[in-house]
Amino acid sequence: MDPSEVDVPPLKDLTIDNITDNVKLINSQCPDPRLKYLLERLVQHVHDFARETRLSHNEWLAAIQFLTAVGQICTDVRQEFILLSDILGLSLLVDSIDHPKPADSTEGTVLGPFHTHDAHSEPNGTQIAHDPDGEPCLVLCTIKDRSGKPVSDVKIDIWETDSKGKYDVQYEGREQPDQRAVMHSDEEGKFWFKAIVPVPYPIPHDGPVGKLLKLLKRHCYRPSHMHFMFEKEGFDHLITALYLRGDPYETSDAVFGVKESLLIDLGTVNAEQAKTYGVKEGTKTIVYDFVLVSEEDSRKLREAKAMAAMKHLGLRMKLYNGLPVPEID
Amino acid sequence: MDPSEVDVPPLKDLTIDNITDNVKLINSQCPDPRLKYLLERLVQHVHDFARETRLSHNEWLAAIQFLTAVGQICTDVRQEFILLSDILGLSLLVDSIDHPKPADSTEGTVLGPFHTHDAHSEPNGTQIAHDPDGEPCLVLCTIKDRSGKPVSDVKIDIWETDSKGKYDVQYEGREQPDQRAVMHSDEEGKFWFKAIVPVPYPIPHDGPVGKLLKLLKRHCYRPSHMHFMFEKEGFDHLITALYLRGDPYETSDAVFGVKESLLIDLGTVNAEQAKTYGVKEGTKTIVYDFVLVSEEDSRKLREAKAMAAMKHLGLRMKLYNGLPVPEID
Repeated sequence: MDPSEVDVPPLKDLTIDNITDNVKLINSQCPDPRLKYLLERLVQHVHDFARETRLSHNEWLAAIQFLTAVGQICTDVRQEFILLSDILGLSLLVDSIDHPKPADSTEGTVLGPFHTHDAHSEPNGTQIAHDPDGEPCLVLCTIKDRSGKPVSDVKIDIWETDSKGKYDVQYEGREQPDQRAVMHSDEEGKFWFKAIVPVPYPIPHDGPVGKLLKLLKRHCYRPSHMHFMFEKEGFDHLITALYLRGDPYETSDAVFGVKESLLIDLGTVNAEQAKTYGVKEGTKTIVYDFVLVSEEDSRKLREAKAMAAMKHLGLRMKLYNGLPVPEID
Repeated sequence: MDPSEVDVPPLKDLTIDNITDNVKLINSQCPDPRLKYLLERLVQHVHDFARETRLSHNEWLAAIQFLTAVGQICTDVRQEFILLSDILGLSLLVDSIDHPKPADSTEGTVLGPFHTHDAHSEPNGTQIAHDPDGEPCLVLCTIKDRSGKPVSDVKIDIWETDSKGKYDVQYEGREQPDQRAVMHSDEEGKFWFKAIVPVPYPIPHDGPVGKLLKLLKRHCYRPSHMHFMFEKEGFDHLITALYLRGDPYETSDAVFGVKESLLIDLGTVNAEQAKTYGVKEGTKTIVYDFVLVSEEDSRKLREAKAMAAMKHLGLRMKLYNGLPVPEID
């Protein structure tokens, strides 16, 4: 940008006490009110953090090096910044803010860093996991709206690890997706597939996030779970997962994802189901009824909660594209 | 880490309102009290930021992608995270906190991302800049302590851009350092060298930080300056720079580095100086007397200011390796 086009306030002799206001002032020329508000809050919190901790140059440099390492280990199939957000509880917090759920609908949870966009679209009944060491598991689900009406033609992304606790993308030389699929609910809102019983696994801990967990004396395990993502026009995007009750890490998920309402007990296939779905009697089952919220209900709830939270914080705000910005600019 | 070695508090059903305390709780097992305090404050501020802005999933994802891009553009000779810290005013803030200066000593300022560790050690009088288009400039400096006593054998790192406003490391195929040197003060605390008159220049703006500045409608220029870094045992490390008074960007430095006490007016070489230093009469000069603070004075001042700031914030803290941690753990 040609500096002559930019009108900047005079900035000189900045100190611990006046730099925050001055940085906010120079950023305040941002024409987008939402980005301006985000930066205003970001600068305040980053500066307050440094002031409250009396952050040393060496600590600052260690943070710079840590963040650089986090960025540099990222690849097409590894997202260490999402992992960092996950272990700091930020991912779950953002999902809770952005996708508030009425009590009668399925709760959301963390996306995690292992969703991919290359899963094959498969018909109901497909065997989506091919690990011969995995314990077979029949998954039988329905999708309804809040009135109890089945929702058909929902796009469902499903992904889980193999029996060793690794996602396909964690293996070198991965040629095609495994333990993942895209399915669609049928006319009765049903979808079903054959997978394997989920197992607990460590999040990737050979990188900077793993080092941080070790310094914090935290373990890096996630309890057994299977991921689900639901998309259909008119409905709020739902990112969630089902967790096996009684898992050793049920109450200490490294990424804070477990919710009581998402815990399930494994069942077993009875004689009739064995016939219907073409699996052995006694095979493990996961049975769950998902309830989606309409986009409209979700938007209303999100906006009402946002404005209530702003009021609670004593901030005078208005909504701009559904997100809060200061009422008086 | 073997999870059986780790005693974790139960974490489940985390919400917007209780996740912060729970994440702090699981991090509180960190055996290092300073890291524990840093994480406690980091989690509080990151979560408060998300709550106060009602951060959306899309904004969170944009931030993840931005930070990833910042990390990925970093190389041995480009540090985009330092640049990000610079344009957010964090670098100057941290320097102000960590290296407080008594009124009778030279102020510090931002290090910037272009210091290298490969500058050659040169004797006084060396021509350190070889750009034929640069305007020659004789730099004559002294280093004293606060009592006015010359300080000899100080290691001084000096770096500046060429006449086009680029550092040597910004050119591909750089074979050896230019416009930079390491010098040492003589018995009288003097050091002098031949360089070129500094020019204003844009910080690197072809990466994610440049994009952010553009979105914020900020320019990316730094006023003309020459960097200096001073190291000698027993003295506080001084990172500073001298700025040319009257530069068009004097009051709008993109990285907030300018301080009144670091502004200088260019002088010109007189007949006697021309003879002494072997330069043409009329050549531009930069003349400056630096004053270093003893490590002991700096430590005392830093600690006193830290404890005063903690008290002002209403926090009951003690010092641990010179940095604040909660008094009661």
